Amino acid sequence: MADDDQHPDNETRLLYIQERLDEQDTPALAALFNALETVETTRILESFPQKTRDLLWPLIPTEDIGEVLAGVDEEIRADYVEDLSASDLETIVRGLDAQDVAEVLDVTDDETKSSVYASLDDNIRAQVENLHAYEEDVVGRYMDPETVNVKQGVSLEAVQRYIRIHHLLDDQSQQIMITDKEKRLLGTLTLIDLVKQPQEARVEEYMVDSFTLNDQMRVNNAAVLLRSKELSFVPVCDADGILVGQLNAADVLEITQDNADMTLKHMSGVSDEEEVFTPILRSAKSRGLWLGLNLLTAFLAAFVIGQFEAVLDQIVALAILMPVVASMGGIAGSQTLTVVIRGLALGQLVGDNTRWLYNKELMVGMSNGLVWSLVVGAISYVWFGQALITLVITLAIFVNMSLANLSGVVIPLILKRLKIDPALSGAVILTTVTDVVGFLSFLGLATLIIL
Amino acid sequence: MADDDQHPDNETRLLYIQERLDEQDTPALAALFNALETVETTRILESFPQKTRDLLWPLIPTEDIGEVLAGVDEEIRADYVEDLSASDLETIVRGLDAQDVAEVLDVTDDETKSSVYASLDDNIRAQVENLHAYEEDVVGRYMDPETVNVKQGVSLEAVQRYIRIHHLLDDQSQQIMITDKEKRLLGTLTLIDLVKQPQEARVEEYMVDSFTLNDQMRVNNAAVLLRSKELSFVPVCDADGILVGQLNAADVLEITQDNADMTLKHMSGVSDEEEVFTPILRSAKSRGLWLGLNLLTAFLAAFVIGQFEAVLDQIVALAILMPVVASMGGIAGSQTLTVVIRGLALGQLVGDNTRWLYNKELMVGMSNGLVWSLVVGAISYVWFGQALITLVITLAIFVNMSLANLSGVVIPLILKRLKIDPALSGAVILTTVTDVVGFLSFLGLATLIIL
Repeated sequence: MADDDQHPDNETRLLYIQERLDEQDTPALAALFNALETVETTRILESFPQKTRDLLWPLIPTEDIGEVLAGVDEEIRADYVEDLSASDLETIVRGLDAQDVAEVLDVTDDETKSSVYASLDDNIRAQVENLHAYEEDVVGRYMDPETVNVKQGVSLEAVQRYIRIHHLLDDQSQQIMITDKEKRLLGTLTLIDLVKQPQEARVEEYMVDSFTLNDQMRVNNAAVLLRSKELSFVPVCDADGILVGQLNAADVLEITQDNADMTLKHMSGVSDEEEVFTPILRSAKSRGLWLGLNLLTAFLAAFVIGQFEAVLDQIVALAILMPVVASMGGIAGSQTLTVVIRGLALGQLVGDNTRWLYNKELMVGMSNGLVWSLVVGAISYVWFGQALITLVITLAIFVNMSLANLSGVVIPLILKRLKIDPALSGAVILTTVTDVVGFLSFLGLATLIIL
Repeated sequence: MADDDQHPDNETRLLYIQERLDEQDTPALAALFNALETVETTRILESFPQKTRDLLWPLIPTEDIGEVLAGVDEEIRADYVEDLSASDLETIVRGLDAQDVAEVLDVTDDETKSSVYASLDDNIRAQVENLHAYEEDVVGRYMDPETVNVKQGVSLEAVQRYIRIHHLLDDQSQQIMITDKEKRLLGTLTLIDLVKQPQEARVEEYMVDSFTLNDQMRVNNAAVLLRSKELSFVPVCDADGILVGQLNAADVLEITQDNADMTLKHMSGVSDEEEVFTPILRSAKSRGLWLGLNLLTAFLAAFVIGQFEAVLDQIVALAILMPVVASMGGIAGSQTLTVVIRGLALGQLVGDNTRWLYNKELMVGMSNGLVWSLVVGAISYVWFGQALITLVITLAIFVNMSLANLSGVVIPLILKRLKIDPALSGAVILTTVTDVVGFLSFLGLATLIIL
């Protein structure tokens, strides 16, 4: 999101691929995929609708397919894995690390899963089975189970030699784990200290008392913690303090970004899985549910209006001005909602803070309500030239905007207490409240004052 | 955002602080801040309104103040830096790294800045001046200017010795830079390879051809690139390929998270800087502008309704059902908008993809439009028992939902071409379109069919 051109390179590459496809220039495309890193191939596959993707898929080098499958969006992965036999899968996952194998097998049925399990190296199989034992949305499912562990008392030099002899440290490692005999985590040693500190020093001299995550923690809670502590690496332990894995920088980035995406999608009624190239039927279905829910609330608003037929029948200007009342309340409320949802995610809203926030939002709602209700009143007077209508709409806008801001605090706090994601249903409930309050105050005041 | 309790630890800590404040137990609070890491102190300060924060501020250990100031939200930083003399600032920034010094001095006037510059070590001053030379929203401003550079031809062992002798590698380094005589970047060597590979090998044997960012790139574009390439470390070069700094995992996390926050805030009309504890007046002002803009569009909708006074005057049921038409179109359109804004951010919407997307969204809009217009029609028939009103609302919902989905594609694409952030103004323009189209089709059809 910015004011200059984004990714000329990515867009140029997609256009290049479209042109080669139009010319049926398969060799050029195969050469491209050969030259690209798997993460780039993955992004390209995610950047086309299914039909185009199906044309590109056979051109991916065989040795890249495993990592590409592990990397693409789950919907796409499921589409391709479905068509693969167990023996194809066995070939594909050979050489992948446990995290990638677990991702690929995630979308297979139990039978295929156990057949592929049987073909894996003992070490990888044990790790994959461990990962699969976790529920889908907990930290354990996202961690790298392969850690480098050393005991206290060894020198940095000895650690370095140990790593070289046993070919330890994979692509993403950033720290060495210091554990006791039971594999309980005592602390960590950064690669930075391993290199920069005197080599005769013992690991405990530079051991850091690392923040750890519990393997059963919800990944969305972990996302917020990781962010607030600005961590890009964290060891994962089970309930007994036994080290079971680690989150590397790439895992942390994935977890925190997925969490941000989810909030954004939930707030506008889009499901977690939907992307631009999700097929028509799937999109229509997942969005349809949300539309149905919204319909209920829209009819609730209509029902409220229906109670005031008498006054609407007499003064048509009211029908004309109704959307202004609803719209100003809706916007004011959703501004508050967005800010409060962030505060909730950061765990900031407790005790006196909550009281302070109610007060703040009421004041903001009333002051903006005052300003804009007077503006709306003035415009309405110029338009319709009727003092009573002007009075009614000015009061209604003021009431609705003040209550909208309060609702923007109350609704997410209640949802949180009910253990419902405030981002998911907050917006639809809030709009219902601002519509109902808006119509009720506007038409109610009109009935009282004008009729 | 999740369905179980978030941060019992953070919330518990905030409550603990509130209780100590109520009891005026200053020693307990001072002890707490002494024990905490600066990033935790920073989060606590951000978790209270200004009045409480002012009580806590004097309790922060002097040696932490620099890092805390560098870490807190810009608004808070400005509040405290304002009250500090140049000589206070000189003491505070002593010992900070260049990135932190640059952050703190960002909010000072030019006079204070040059006075503090003069007090810095030559090396740090040069780095800070370099950082300040960049515009606020480019990559160069966010980078760590301190890199560890080696030439080709040296052995890994020699690199390790060089690092130890000169006390190189700061807290966040992840890679060693391999440069030529002009400091042009040739490639990088990861700390992992530096440790795990045979020590007699020369650096070029394990040199990776690293992806780099240009120092003048907009930071929001960089955020998307970093994410799509799944990078958590990247060297930064100027236009001539000269190495000028690096983005570490923490910088990458900050850049990508700020970008996600910005999109979320922009979509609901909240400014980048607003947080839960932003003071009343600042919040009211920044939100007020957005409300004013929305008012214009609300009156546009009212004006459209005003054109149909005749039919509204005769059939009050139309006024009752109006919000249903507007609401269903608004939700459908904003679902599309959210998905399209993501696709734009990822650079996916070019050539045939755009055509495919128009087709998809029209199909999704029409199919959901068909389903829900029939449902709305049925409910309206039961409610009002009038065939013509049923016909009108069924058609209007169908038209509005189909066009809403198309608008959800057209509007952000046009905004992008005009170099306007689609997240910022997309939602308000879209609502205007769905309101206008909704009222126009509903009341227009009513005029044609019923009058």
